Amino acid sequence: MSDVPAALYEGKAKIVYPGEDADTLVLFFKDDTSAFDGEKREQLARKGEINNAFNAYIQTYLQEHGVPTHFLRRLDARRSLVRRLDMIPVESVLRNRAAGSLCRRLGVEEGRLLEPPVLEFFLKNDALHDPMINRSHIRTFGYAHAEEVERMEYWTLRVNALLRERFAQVGLILVDFKLEFGRFAGEIFLGDEFSPDGCRLWDVQSQEKMDKDRFRRGLGGVVEAYIEVARRLGIATDA
Amino acid sequence: MSDVPAALYEGKAKIVYPGEDADTLVLFFKDDTSAFDGEKREQLARKGEINNAFNAYIQTYLQEHGVPTHFLRRLDARRSLVRRLDMIPVESVLRNRAAGSLCRRLGVEEGRLLEPPVLEFFLKNDALHDPMINRSHIRTFGYAHAEEVERMEYWTLRVNALLRERFAQVGLILVDFKLEFGRFAGEIFLGDEFSPDGCRLWDVQSQEKMDKDRFRRGLGGVVEAYIEVARRLGIATDA
Ligand SMILES: Nc1ncnc2c1ncn2[C@@H]1O[C@H](COP(=O)(O)OP(=O)(O)O)[C@@H](O)[C@H]1O
Ligand SMILES: Nc1ncnc2c1ncn2[C@@H]1O[C@H](COP(=O)(O)OP(=O)(O)O)[C@@H](O)[C@H]1O
Ligand SMILES: [Mg+2]
Ligand SMILES: [Mg+2]
Repeated sequence: MSDVPAALYEGKAKIVYPGEDADTLVLFFKDDTSAFDGEKREQLARKGEINNAFNAYIQTYLQEHGVPTHFLRRLDARRSLVRRLDMIPVESVLRNRAAGSLCRRLGVEEGRLLEPPVLEFFLKNDALHDPMINRSHIRTFGYAHAEEVERMEYWTLRVNALLRERFAQVGLILVDFKLEFGRFAGEIFLGDEFSPDGCRLWDVQSQEKMDKDRFRRGLGGVVEAYIEVARRLGIATDA
Repeated sequence: MSDVPAALYEGKAKIVYPGEDADTLVLFFKDDTSAFDGEKREQLARKGEINNAFNAYIQTYLQEHGVPTHFLRRLDARRSLVRRLDMIPVESVLRNRAAGSLCRRLGVEEGRLLEPPVLEFFLKNDALHDPMINRSHIRTFGYAHAEEVERMEYWTLRVNALLRERFAQVGLILVDFKLEFGRFAGEIFLGDEFSPDGCRLWDVQSQEKMDKDRFRRGLGGVVEAYIEVARRLGIATDA
């Protein structure tokens, strides 16, 4: 018997604990940072608290603009309370500019404007290295219903419209981002986190990378860049 | 100056020559057989003529059942006359059962029934190893218009309904197949070839592979299997 409830799940970046009741969960943001299917791993001091604050800001911003999200409230520096969702094992990736795997796959130069933005789905499965899938795979293998996929697409485009604009206001290009969704009470809600761990942000002036690519490429100053993005958005990070 | 017109293009399995007029082409079926992005290559005696006869039969069958195809007529053992299309650089792959790359990508056992069938698009680009793409890539990179993609999907499903049934009549399971489409006079036409080089066929009794997987896996009896499939369909192969 211990005072701290047992973790329900420990992932690459967060630990999931039970919440106050059966309908909620507590997300604990770790300093662990991983890339290349977990091949590169490091602890980056303060990253967990920065991402927790960052995510709280973005999820609240999206809620205020009509996006249904799991977020309930930040509990402390590293923990947030969320609605427990029945997660859909599909990552929804939106790309405003070419970067990362898209460049390699399609032979496109980094930074190329994608108009309209590209939307991709990936199966969330570490053992299979998160393979790209399409609506047909999602339907045939039962990962989600056709209408759920449509809602995911709709909310992904809506999140993009909202956040592209918000980041532009503070001199940042939202290059791409990854979202996860889940079911609650018959509706599709945005789950997981939105932080520089799961998106690409470039400074509009210097074109400097302000996201996890600094970690992937060993550029250094990873958490410093996250803090700078947070500062521009008016997010307090010295809690 | 030569009597034989210069080839317009030499591919992995066929040589393309100009036709009688600007609107037509002659496809010459080679014995060359390749797999794994051209890493494995071999000449298989008589394969070209078998595929030419096979393709003529299938394209005619599809036309008789309302599918618009480029096929005009077989000219001789190795050559067929086709309508010249403005090819769409996208391969349309339909899967009734799991096999090949799908099994590797999604960790699915070979032979698993896919209901509804899975439909995938691949960019036809050897240098990039024919990467999988979705409607969003096709639209953003301008490979085809949204309505063209819809026609490709429609005709791919229609071809599947027709051929699955036809092969079932002769004791063969149509596991999967690849199609290529092109534009002519504002419409989408089926192009290229339909042969055991670009589909998977299993004997319903013995589950034996009767297609190019015999070559990929070094099982031997490749052309013999193609001839047996042709024989069952009533295709004359001793021209
Ligand atoms: N609201 C939610 N309800 C249930 N599960 C969630 C919710 N939000 C996020 N999750 C899941 O919790 C886990 C968060 O931990 P993380 O370290 O990101 O894991 P992973 O390594 O699997 O990505 C993820 O598997 C994510 O899908
Ligand atoms: N009706 C057509 N009009 C124009 N091009 C065609 C037509 N049918 C097939 N093609 C193209 O002709 C080539 C046939 O040769 P092939 O050996 O299959 O080439 P590849 O190695 O590029 O697949 C292919 O590139 C195919 O896209
Ligand atoms: Mg995660
Ligand atoms: Mg070909």
